Amino acid sequence: MDATTIGLVAGALTSFAAVPQVLRTWRTRQARDLSIWQPVILTVGMFLWLAYGMLLKDLPLIVANLFSIVCYLVLIGMKIIFDRADKLALRD
Amino acid sequence: MDATTIGLVAGALTSFAAVPQVLRTWRTRQARDLSIWQPVILTVGMFLWLAYGMLLKDLPLIVANLFSIVCYLVLIGMKIIFDRADKLALRD
Repeated sequence: MDATTIGLVAGALTSFAAVPQVLRTWRTRQARDLSIWQPVILTVGMFLWLAYGMLLKDLPLIVANLFSIVCYLVLIGMKIIFDRADKLALRD
Repeated sequence: MDATTIGLVAGALTSFAAVPQVLRTWRTRQARDLSIWQPVILTVGMFLWLAYGMLLKDLPLIVANLFSIVCYLVLIGMKIIFDRADKLALRD
């Protein structure tokens, strides 16, 4: 396996890694144990990786990071919504 | 800002992103809402990024991924330990 292939597989894995957490949070409607800062910092970092990929015209880097950004933005949205629902439920 | 600087900042951010989740899980002793698959898949991906960095003799890539791998291995360990403690507590 040459370096480029290793890099592509690595990128695919680190991009796909968000999916199980998105699915679990969607299924359980629970995000209390999640730190919002992980997806927020990851998203900022991945925007920079996206810019880096565009500067280098590196398609895998662009596609991998676009996919991850969408996943983590969905996760951030769910974290905010489900935590708010938790608070309202506690008040009732 | 040139491409290399953007790449270094992106790498630092995506590596550092694990820290808030590790700290939160350590503080709350709660990991129920976390999917174990995210850190597991990320760790496998980051081992490949580490191999990629070694092949390219790219020090930032090596350092960033070593740091992240340690963070996510700690997170996986806490997830297993705290979930087991949860189950034992439910049984008592």
